[in-house]
Amino acid sequence: MRKPGLIVAPLTPFTSDLKLDEPALQRQIDYVVRDCGATMVVAAGVETQEYTYLGFEQRRALIHRTIEFVDGRVPVMVGISHPSFKTAIELAHDAEKLGAAAVQLLAPLRPFAGPPTQADLVAYFEMIGRETGLPITLYLNPGPGADVSIPDTIALAKLPRVQLIKESSRDLARVSRLIVEIDRAGHARYFTTMQMLLATLQLGGSGATMPPPGSEIARHLIDAFVAKDFERAAELQLQFALFPSKWMHRGLAPAMKAAMNLIGVSVGEPYPPYVPLSRDEMAALAAVLRTTVLADRLPVTVAA
Amino acid sequence: MRKPGLIVAPLTPFTSDLKLDEPALQRQIDYVVRDCGATMVVAAGVETQEYTYLGFEQRRALIHRTIEFVDGRVPVMVGISHPSFKTAIELAHDAEKLGAAAVQLLAPLRPFAGPPTQADLVAYFEMIGRETGLPITLYLNPGPGADVSIPDTIALAKLPRVQLIKESSRDLARVSRLIVEIDRAGHARYFTTMQMLLATLQLGGSGATMPPPGSEIARHLIDAFVAKDFERAAELQLQFALFPSKWMHRGLAPAMKAAMNLIGVSVGEPYPPYVPLSRDEMAALAAVLRTTVLADRLPVTVAA
Amino acid sequence: MRKPGLIVAPLTPFTSDLKLDEPALQRQIDYVVRDCGATMVVAAGVETQEYTYLGFEQRRALIHRTIEFVDGRVPVMVGISHPSFKTAIELAHDAEKLGAAAVQLLAPLRPFAGPPTQADLVAYFEMIGRETGLPITLYLNPGPGADVSIPDTIALAKLPRVQLIKESSRDLARVSRLIVEIDRAGHARYFTTMQMLLATLQLGGSGATMPPPGSEIARHLIDAFVAKDFERAAELQLQFALFPSKWMHRGLAPAMKAAMNLIGVSVGEPYPPYVPLSRDEMAALAAVLRTTVLADRLPVTVAA
Amino acid sequence: MRKPGLIVAPLTPFTSDLKLDEPALQRQIDYVVRDCGATMVVAAGVETQEYTYLGFEQRRALIHRTIEFVDGRVPVMVGISHPSFKTAIELAHDAEKLGAAAVQLLAPLRPFAGPPTQADLVAYFEMIGRETGLPITLYLNPGPGADVSIPDTIALAKLPRVQLIKESSRDLARVSRLIVEIDRAGHARYFTTMQMLLATLQLGGSGATMPPPGSEIARHLIDAFVAKDFERAAELQLQFALFPSKWMHRGLAPAMKAAMNLIGVSVGEPYPPYVPLSRDEMAALAAVLRTTVLADRLPVTVAA
Repeated sequence: MRKPGLIVAPLTPFTSDLKLDEPALQRQIDYVVRDCGATMVVAAGVETQEYTYLGFEQRRALIHRTIEFVDGRVPVMVGISHPSFKTAIELAHDAEKLGAAAVQLLAPLRPFAGPPTQADLVAYFEMIGRETGLPITLYLNPGPGADVSIPDTIALAKLPRVQLIKESSRDLARVSRLIVEIDRAGHARYFTTMQMLLATLQLGGSGATMPPPGSEIARHLIDAFVAKDFERAAELQLQFALFPSKWMHRGLAPAMKAAMNLIGVSVGEPYPPYVPLSRDEMAALAAVLRTTVLADRLPVTVAA
Repeated sequence: MRKPGLIVAPLTPFTSDLKLDEPALQRQIDYVVRDCGATMVVAAGVETQEYTYLGFEQRRALIHRTIEFVDGRVPVMVGISHPSFKTAIELAHDAEKLGAAAVQLLAPLRPFAGPPTQADLVAYFEMIGRETGLPITLYLNPGPGADVSIPDTIALAKLPRVQLIKESSRDLARVSRLIVEIDRAGHARYFTTMQMLLATLQLGGSGATMPPPGSEIARHLIDAFVAKDFERAAELQLQFALFPSKWMHRGLAPAMKAAMNLIGVSVGEPYPPYVPLSRDEMAALAAVLRTTVLADRLPVTVAA
Repeated sequence: MRKPGLIVAPLTPFTSDLKLDEPALQRQIDYVVRDCGATMVVAAGVETQEYTYLGFEQRRALIHRTIEFVDGRVPVMVGISHPSFKTAIELAHDAEKLGAAAVQLLAPLRPFAGPPTQADLVAYFEMIGRETGLPITLYLNPGPGADVSIPDTIALAKLPRVQLIKESSRDLARVSRLIVEIDRAGHARYFTTMQMLLATLQLGGSGATMPPPGSEIARHLIDAFVAKDFERAAELQLQFALFPSKWMHRGLAPAMKAAMNLIGVSVGEPYPPYVPLSRDEMAALAAVLRTTVLADRLPVTVAA
Repeated sequence: MRKPGLIVAPLTPFTSDLKLDEPALQRQIDYVVRDCGATMVVAAGVETQEYTYLGFEQRRALIHRTIEFVDGRVPVMVGISHPSFKTAIELAHDAEKLGAAAVQLLAPLRPFAGPPTQADLVAYFEMIGRETGLPITLYLNPGPGADVSIPDTIALAKLPRVQLIKESSRDLARVSRLIVEIDRAGHARYFTTMQMLLATLQLGGSGATMPPPGSEIARHLIDAFVAKDFERAAELQLQFALFPSKWMHRGLAPAMKAAMNLIGVSVGEPYPPYVPLSRDEMAALAAVLRTTVLADRLPVTVAA
């Protein structure tokens, strides 16, 4: 069995004047690499990393600092998503120079209503793939990105440069089929997310991408799975049943930032207008986290 | 561990003049009880059973024959879904007289646009629950039925008479959360469907409801899970990755009827205007079924 | 200019034991024919008429009584919607015997998930069209019925037997295009609904179908339009801006029944579990109705 | 009657190396101001203007050039949409310095799934409104932006700084209600789009925002409406029934660029990966445009 992948997407800590809080990012990356056993770190790749708030130079700085703080301990993948293929190529060239191992690219929304066609999507990925030697991760996240059908996903996965897929859907019928038709078929490695991790591994998928501290639970889960301790793996999967789903109406970034702050790896507050969890919400979240492998990191003084 | 449930929904075989084909139903029920090890049979309960095409007396006849053919070997649950609570009660009274073990009731669509409120849904289930002593299965199937939110599902699960839930969603984030907040919390037993079965069992859910012949794969899967042979269980779950998903654009009833016909338990064709799978589609389906535990049932002569 | 059509769908009044309240239906039909100038009455045709709650014989009784109470003053169209084409045909044969002028048929939902194909829809309408000599109204109401695409709607409109279309969408881009490609192209007459009436007439559509008492406002609007008093027509269209939209979260049947009760043509309460408007909601609705042509029918004593 | 507004959004012409084609923009703006009678021009405000492909400095250049080419003939509104309120404020400050009359701001998508709350939306608009003295147009375009409910739209319209609303929906039930509750209630002026223009004016809305050459049809329509020639206004509205709806599967920008190229005001091709209309599609579009007020601009040699 190929070793399952755990791609971790560090949250972006902001200072009170909404600049990148570099020391907080560095501490978080140490946690992600050392304590979560990330097999790869993704820089400015998923929307939960709040990179869309950043100006272009700030975004490049976030990528640069992420690579610097990872410091070669694990490979880094760089998010290059942009409506313009030219800007995506520019970011890919930067990524190459910085020594990135791969780039991640959101299947883009058609700006003027209606879905992009398969031809549109293929053309976009091919234009970018021609200009970079790095492997491309196809990133699927309907909403900020396009809602890509099963046949269109398969067509994109067959492009030689597309070597990984990051799937945001929690639709297990879709994911089961695509793991078989894409990952087991040898076209690309299939990565999913927290709630899908054990099911993904059992079906032969390659792993998952997620922010911390979900990644610490995922590390335990992957280790149990590799050790064939499937009952323990199932217990760990259960730790993703309420966390973070129960706080998703607040958004994934606010929920995960709250959890990080609770376990003592401070990452600050969400970018406005989104607001941090309330005191009551924090207490409820702490109570749930106490039932997970994160329990030991919670201070005794946090009310349950 | 509680023994997992496998609730099987026999397909409805029609004669060429679109009446119930009783001998075909009887043979199918024997297969379902004997070969699939159904722990319960549901009569006229899910839309894939094509019961909505039947007039009221035909629907009652289907229920009656199903109970007769099961012949006490396993408990039978009776579908009583109807927009009118009065008709649902009438069907529940019939079910009681026929010795049914439970009734299944679709969360109803609001006929005049927009979703029913939690109060509407609770009132509907309470009106019916007051008139029957049988346990009620809350059946969730957005489209034919309402799209019930997580909070509304929990509210309905807390009604004393609602003791099971049949969930049609393949959204594993939703299902993970509801298994914890409903089944593990003791409010009702949570049943899902083919693609979700292993994940459901691992999270502590109660089983799944499905038509044959998926139920034969599910039987092997459940047995492997109970025997703690988790690698075998995962291999079996993988058999649901392409079947029936790859034929869902044709509809679940046409796909499952085709599979039954291929394994030699003939159930005829879908109710018009829906059409059977083409010769090429049948060949492709047979090729996939040859990779499953159903392979032995396929005749040697079917082209792959 | 062809005279615009106003097809009125009487609400179904229930007695306290949920049987058809025939005297209330008769009074309502008199209002609809005499005061609203309906050019056609539709019996048990749209979901707002709450016919889905009725058993088959009750549904036939509703149709029979509607035709009887209209008493030849205007043509009657009979709803024959049913998942089974055989039942629809049976209802069409009844309609013929009762002297109906047309039948109305909902584009059916595919019971087992996913949309019906164009071939499925065409086959269904053709099977029924072959068995009745009456013109068929294609009824489009996504939710209870299928969500039919623009090309599929055009394909159905081209069937010789399909002579009218009742469109429930409020999407003016869709409706504008279909009025041109269907009604102006001579394939079928296009009918819409309250909020769309003036726009429909101006584009060359044929009219609208709606329940009372919206139909009384519509009558004034149509008369103004025919008299080329377009400013008056626009003022009347404005009377549909808040009524009934502002109460649609309660459902169209509860909102329209409330309005009928306010203007003194009592039609009772919605079928359970749906509930009548509260006292406060009634007062707010009365205040809006006082700004419409219905004002004179409101008693002085209703609080505004 | 207040004079109806016609806000025109020039398409962005690109050179073959995907830079802003300034001469083409200038010729287009002359057409928009002189021939369409725009009452306001919006710079880089709607997605059909393809501004999301531009880097930040290119976007500022597009704004600058637009204002320069309009040259004070009519007021200019500047698009300041950005996920970050800080960047939106920066663009608003630029707009003030450049003499803009207003700014336009998209209700932002929540980047991490699920809708923003009313509080989130109000906070975002207030943060920006505090930093600029210019009136703000609330821009509603679900997909690139959030899907804002009726109550949330009303809440935003009540903010003092929000003085206009640009609504992209073609849902006439929604728009009818919001025109009454927002525009007629005095909270903000309500603008819609091509297919909705006559209905908007008749209900008391303020006008529409659209790209050319739809704006030339709209100019004729508004003039007929103001002259109370309502039959002519309806004929003109009918010219929007097929154009551009019939080409919307290709996207609004490709369709409108094709129409501009056909009438001789060349604006080039869509930004890749989107492609221009094919020769056959151009011929079909030309045939439709020949039935509109744009007919005179079409060369005789274009095949119909």
